[in-house]
Amino acid sequence: MAMLLEAAQEMLLAGARTAATEEVALADCWRRVLAAPVVADADFPPFDRSPLDGYALIAAEAAEASLPRPVLLKVVDDIPAGSLPHVDVRLGEASRIMTGAPVPAGATGVVRREDTCEMDGRVAIFAAAGAAANICRRGEEIAGGEQVVAAGTVVNAGVMGLLALLGVARPLVYKRPRVALLATGSEIVPVDGPLAPGTIRNSNSYMLAAQVREAGAEPVLAGIVRDEVAAIAAGLQEAAGCDIVVTTGGVSTGDYDLLADVYRELGIEILFDRVGMKPGMPVLAGRKDGKQYIGLSGNPAAASVAFEQLVRPLLLRMGGRNDLWRPRAKAMLTASFAKSSGTTRFVWARCRLLDGGLTAEPLRLQGNGMLKSAVAANALIVIPADSPPLAPGSTVEVRLLADL
Amino acid sequence: MAMLLEAAQEMLLAGARTAATEEVALADCWRRVLAAPVVADADFPPFDRSPLDGYALIAAEAAEASLPRPVLLKVVDDIPAGSLPHVDVRLGEASRIMTGAPVPAGATGVVRREDTCEMDGRVAIFAAAGAAANICRRGEEIAGGEQVVAAGTVVNAGVMGLLALLGVARPLVYKRPRVALLATGSEIVPVDGPLAPGTIRNSNSYMLAAQVREAGAEPVLAGIVRDEVAAIAAGLQEAAGCDIVVTTGGVSTGDYDLLADVYRELGIEILFDRVGMKPGMPVLAGRKDGKQYIGLSGNPAAASVAFEQLVRPLLLRMGGRNDLWRPRAKAMLTASFAKSSGTTRFVWARCRLLDGGLTAEPLRLQGNGMLKSAVAANALIVIPADSPPLAPGSTVEVRLLADL
Repeated sequence: MAMLLEAAQEMLLAGARTAATEEVALADCWRRVLAAPVVADADFPPFDRSPLDGYALIAAEAAEASLPRPVLLKVVDDIPAGSLPHVDVRLGEASRIMTGAPVPAGATGVVRREDTCEMDGRVAIFAAAGAAANICRRGEEIAGGEQVVAAGTVVNAGVMGLLALLGVARPLVYKRPRVALLATGSEIVPVDGPLAPGTIRNSNSYMLAAQVREAGAEPVLAGIVRDEVAAIAAGLQEAAGCDIVVTTGGVSTGDYDLLADVYRELGIEILFDRVGMKPGMPVLAGRKDGKQYIGLSGNPAAASVAFEQLVRPLLLRMGGRNDLWRPRAKAMLTASFAKSSGTTRFVWARCRLLDGGLTAEPLRLQGNGMLKSAVAANALIVIPADSPPLAPGSTVEVRLLADL
Repeated sequence: MAMLLEAAQEMLLAGARTAATEEVALADCWRRVLAAPVVADADFPPFDRSPLDGYALIAAEAAEASLPRPVLLKVVDDIPAGSLPHVDVRLGEASRIMTGAPVPAGATGVVRREDTCEMDGRVAIFAAAGAAANICRRGEEIAGGEQVVAAGTVVNAGVMGLLALLGVARPLVYKRPRVALLATGSEIVPVDGPLAPGTIRNSNSYMLAAQVREAGAEPVLAGIVRDEVAAIAAGLQEAAGCDIVVTTGGVSTGDYDLLADVYRELGIEILFDRVGMKPGMPVLAGRKDGKQYIGLSGNPAAASVAFEQLVRPLLLRMGGRNDLWRPRAKAMLTASFAKSSGTTRFVWARCRLLDGGLTAEPLRLQGNGMLKSAVAANALIVIPADSPPLAPGSTVEVRLLADL
């Protein structure tokens, strides 16, 4: 009896151990996950700041200024960015100020340089209507004490800029979970070796390595072992130095599908051995000493989908992420999908946003051309159990693999 | 006179130098860009292959097999994965075969193990209707000589698996373009230093570093220089060791906006100094000895948008990518956008896919809270020049920052 997908996901998440944390130089933090909320230790801007080059003045004094009737003020100071004002501004006075410089006390507005003309220590103001708005007030972007980013947030360009602004030079982030990828199968040979008759190359470990990286974790290629209990057991024990062990192959019902035997021999408790989804039904999940072992099918389509559904959320949780699930959407099927099946089915698809909404083109599936399909896929169509064959134009649910 | 955005993009792309290439270990190729097409050197599968555990037989012989009337065959071979058949299959015979093993000559189908029962060297076949379909034919996924991936493709999980399958252990990829990020401004201080009165921290270089990485390039933090011609010139010359130099600040019209003077002094030809977009209008683009220099505004919102519009496509082209442009879509505005302006305006937005289509929520813009907006943004709304204020429910064009 296959376990329901949601129950299998929940069981694995319940056993997830969150990674340890480390401080990392800010410039290297792109895509890392923050392990602590970021709280501003001071206001930003830290002072009333001019957003442009111009003249700081008492706004009311020049409110009526126009081209035929300019207002003339005495220039009492020059404030480049990075400097402090030398004097306050009083009635009849203005201070020359540059973008980013502190607005002097007394000034209530800044007139942009383009609306002025300075000569012999005096400046003619031709227009000052918007002057009061030309001050970025201390604390208007960020108030001291404010939490600006939550723990569990992924560092994107905006977060990176905020952290810099607040002086967080070495943010505390979660370590990337280390994921051992072990291929089992006597027919599997290394990518860089010769291809003897009857053998094929280890594509699963590499495909999964990319999926692991996409999930913000670190793949550790743990090699290939033959379909022999001792070999698989040795491979698993060596791989157990990682935070989680993912294997491919050995989980069906054949004479050489030995993974369950190996789990029993090593004392790995079996959580479930099949999950109600196609492809990817055979999944042998186990746990020992708090470490989780996930045995995926040796079929690339099955391994890839089962990874996406079961391992990816687990890696995100282990990596400290708040958001574990792909965005869902409805899409219009562009071609028929004739297969029906008793269990939930996932179909690689290319989704496109047209003016009328989202469309989903099912790509060729499963073994045949699966990797070619995966190259172009940006979504998985979810076809519920017991669905009839679907005609073009049917509405289907999709999980978007892109971050929208 | 500001240059049209499209003309500015074209001018920069025309001067793009494509990065050199290097061979990289396959496991490290995620997100790298292939510098050569990948052509299969042999068929895949390399032999007729069983997709399941069962018995290889002459399909016609067992086509009528049923539970009350099984067909009995003599088991003549055992073919584990990774082994070759020892004998051909003839009438009245079957070979036990495992997933991934080569189908023996003479066999025209494989019956799955679940529909059989073996005892004393003979196997009873209870159902063999689909047997002929249970052979993955040599070359059915990939034909020898076929181009499976084009040059300029980004390595995702599917591509990674394909490369492994074909034995491409060290793909030829483009080097990541190295992007110098130099902050100019006397008020700018390092992220890890003290914050003296009148100064702010260097957030632009970090924000842009993340944008550079997102574009598949490598940021090189080139430090901070004061608003002085000699300091900026020295900074630019040092940064010129990179493939492209991006600066922030010094491009407006103030007394301390010195970048144009520096370009002239260094003999950097100025391509354009303003681009018709908001934010991000001041952009001082130059070229010398085939190297491009892009001076962005010191305002984070302006720098970020100008980077997205001008520098990102350039970095993708330099990095060998085929697809330079963000996906476009129409979306429904969820709130009013009151500003009108004479030039194209880009507005950070959070797009959501609802059943009825795509919605776009404009986020707070520009200086004020800009970085906080950028944290949540997954799209830019494009508001054409001379648009009136827009009401909620208006249809707008968006550029999706996610890969859909």
